[in-house]
Amino acid sequence: MTERTLVKNLAALEDGLVTVSGWVETVRDQKKVQFVVLRDESGAVQLVNPRTDDTEAVAEIISGLAQGSFVTATGELKHDERVKLGGIEVKLATLVVETAAIAETPIAADSGIDKRMDWRFLDLRRPEQNLVFRVQTTLEHAWRTYWVEHDFIEIHTPKLMASASESRAELFEVDYFDTKAYLSQSPQFFKQMAQPAGFGKVFEVGPAFRADPSFTSRHATEFTSVDAEISWIDSHEDVMQLHEELMVAGFKAVKEKHGDEIKALFDVDIEVPTQPFPRIPLAEAKEIVASRGYVVPREDDDMDPEGERQIAAYVKETYGHDFVFLTDYAASIRPFYHMRNAADETITNSYDLVYNGVEISTGAQREHRIDVLVEQAKQKGLDPEELEFYLDFFRYGVPPHGGFGMGLSRVLMLMLHQTNLREVVYLFRGPTRLTP
Amino acid sequence: MTERTLVKNLAALEDGLVTVSGWVETVRDQKKVQFVVLRDESGAVQLVNPRTDDTEAVAEIISGLAQGSFVTATGELKHDERVKLGGIEVKLATLVVETAAIAETPIAADSGIDKRMDWRFLDLRRPEQNLVFRVQTTLEHAWRTYWVEHDFIEIHTPKLMASASESRAELFEVDYFDTKAYLSQSPQFFKQMAQPAGFGKVFEVGPAFRADPSFTSRHATEFTSVDAEISWIDSHEDVMQLHEELMVAGFKAVKEKHGDEIKALFDVDIEVPTQPFPRIPLAEAKEIVASRGYVVPREDDDMDPEGERQIAAYVKETYGHDFVFLTDYAASIRPFYHMRNAADETITNSYDLVYNGVEISTGAQREHRIDVLVEQAKQKGLDPEELEFYLDFFRYGVPPHGGFGMGLSRVLMLMLHQTNLREVVYLFRGPTRLTP
Repeated sequence: MTERTLVKNLAALEDGLVTVSGWVETVRDQKKVQFVVLRDESGAVQLVNPRTDDTEAVAEIISGLAQGSFVTATGELKHDERVKLGGIEVKLATLVVETAAIAETPIAADSGIDKRMDWRFLDLRRPEQNLVFRVQTTLEHAWRTYWVEHDFIEIHTPKLMASASESRAELFEVDYFDTKAYLSQSPQFFKQMAQPAGFGKVFEVGPAFRADPSFTSRHATEFTSVDAEISWIDSHEDVMQLHEELMVAGFKAVKEKHGDEIKALFDVDIEVPTQPFPRIPLAEAKEIVASRGYVVPREDDDMDPEGERQIAAYVKETYGHDFVFLTDYAASIRPFYHMRNAADETITNSYDLVYNGVEISTGAQREHRIDVLVEQAKQKGLDPEELEFYLDFFRYGVPPHGGFGMGLSRVLMLMLHQTNLREVVYLFRGPTRLTP
Repeated sequence: MTERTLVKNLAALEDGLVTVSGWVETVRDQKKVQFVVLRDESGAVQLVNPRTDDTEAVAEIISGLAQGSFVTATGELKHDERVKLGGIEVKLATLVVETAAIAETPIAADSGIDKRMDWRFLDLRRPEQNLVFRVQTTLEHAWRTYWVEHDFIEIHTPKLMASASESRAELFEVDYFDTKAYLSQSPQFFKQMAQPAGFGKVFEVGPAFRADPSFTSRHATEFTSVDAEISWIDSHEDVMQLHEELMVAGFKAVKEKHGDEIKALFDVDIEVPTQPFPRIPLAEAKEIVASRGYVVPREDDDMDPEGERQIAAYVKETYGHDFVFLTDYAASIRPFYHMRNAADETITNSYDLVYNGVEISTGAQREHRIDVLVEQAKQKGLDPEELEFYLDFFRYGVPPHGGFGMGLSRVLMLMLHQTNLREVVYLFRGPTRLTP
């Protein structure tokens, strides 16, 4: 490996010889002195080259240096509080250009989102973008650590399926040798399979695919789904308790590791949510929203995005909380496998989790009684024959169970107060976006 | 949640009232006394019901109990060393059948692999299978913990691509709105993208897809790929050092957490490999194999599976090691993006990692000099125009870098001395296998 010091570790060093590697963010090529700002994955530092006869070799390199080039620099680290960038600079001894960049950069700070997506690998060099993915790493690791410490089993369910896992409408079709396969819209059926398999508690973080032709700021045709499913629950309340514990574990880790940086780069204070999160039955939520003067303009029993924002505003005003579980969704707008409420079969043992006004997750107790499950499938107009492989899971013994699926990037988007999912996805996929 | 004690925790309790939940593994319905073996995700315990007038209600339930049914049992825990199954039993007070199984079980202990795949959710109830996925969980978590502690960033690269990432031959085609997309064969191009993006070090664990029509015991059309890619390497040696550290971290964690159980259920002693792993240039490996009397029957410069077994046997005899890096593969059999050796451009800065005689991974330094990269693509008969989005990654500055991709299930298969990948995959996908 190139023996280099990460920029973030320079400040703690005493003055002396150091080597840093990264890319050239800016060059100021003045007559008497040259400045280069070098950035690596951890931060930026100023390199300085006073022009004398002795430094002409380095000076020539700097004069020809294109922004974006990757270089390795060796020189004397000096602490100097007059230097705006972190109070340190490196007086260059040698500068090696590893790869020279094309002089013209295709995007600028003010480029539109679509242009930046075209050049995503350059866009990702921005410190804000780098931070997004370090936050993602910390968040996921906190969740997995929670799961592992609580005896969950990690599964990788297949993304190639012989039939639809949710609705046929948003299904991608794959040429599969002499037949057709479909891309999994969610690991729903297969994470449930772990329950009759006796796995107890399972989790998966993996891709899911929706052939959704819409162009909103919060939809993608491919997204990272965060899923858990647990046995022996009494109701969706048990799932919600797991869910809020996970969110707390994730937010704690992010605040601890990146709180200051998030404040500096996004002007956002990460708040670790308090438990329990507020829970409001959907019917009640709609009344609250109506009393605030907003009538949800839908013919079915569902909320709409403005309704979610309104109920979130109410919850924030009333409970000071960024999260709210909307519970007891009408059976009419939930999939056939959600368990109905024992006392009122028009509603389900289910919930949506709303964070900062946007839905990030759906959870539910699943119907595990085969006769009821078949009946509910028929009511939804599904053909039980097509679901045989799934229905078999319930015929040889299965514990009561439930779980949730959550969109990873939605959580990140809302946590960092971004308005577009594309800002927090490594490479976005949409109806007209397949490259890079 | 159902308040239950995991079976594995019973032995440490004092005699007294307990509740356990799980599925019925066996029933012995005798005249004077009934026995039920209940299993949960953590182990098995004997339930006993002496038949008296007082226990007739429970007796009737047991008499009607189908194997596989999920039940919750409450009763008096008793330590009794005469009980073969762990020296404990539970004298039943109540037994609640949560879901009754169909009486006839479609698979038996001696069912063939294909039949067992048809009923994978029942096959997974076997303690060996349960252990496979707990080992998988521990292995992955150890790897991710290593990465996180070493400042790697976790990425999720898209599985939908506009073009091939490796060879066109094994590509699945997807109907994508008005165009075609392809399923990613590996995250190769996109994990490399993180290098010009300045991410430094990245990892990903996710699905990869190969439209490979072969039916061997170690191939699948969908598999879980474990990938890492790091900046500022000097050669593939740096990648190998990372790779062996990761393997050691993973094996340590598995041995510590599951060593005894793996010994009991698979009769395998998990050995933590010593560092450094042996390294043998491929040309030398072929000579060694030839000197053992096996001439690799291939016209190209590659090894074959028998050659890998032979060199592994040699390494085991000579160095007592289960792993070997075969290095310096001929350029003729490596992809265009592998960097060539500076002194001999007929060989590459690349390696395969062989474990217990089977290849589990390919790693390499990547060619990051755009002119050389374009030239190598042309030499392989590729059209640079089709690769433009990838080649752009190298035009705006990029650090020297390299990495590896590894098959998760191959590692598990070889670690647990299994002969078929299907035994260690949650749900196998092959040319004729899309269900369940």
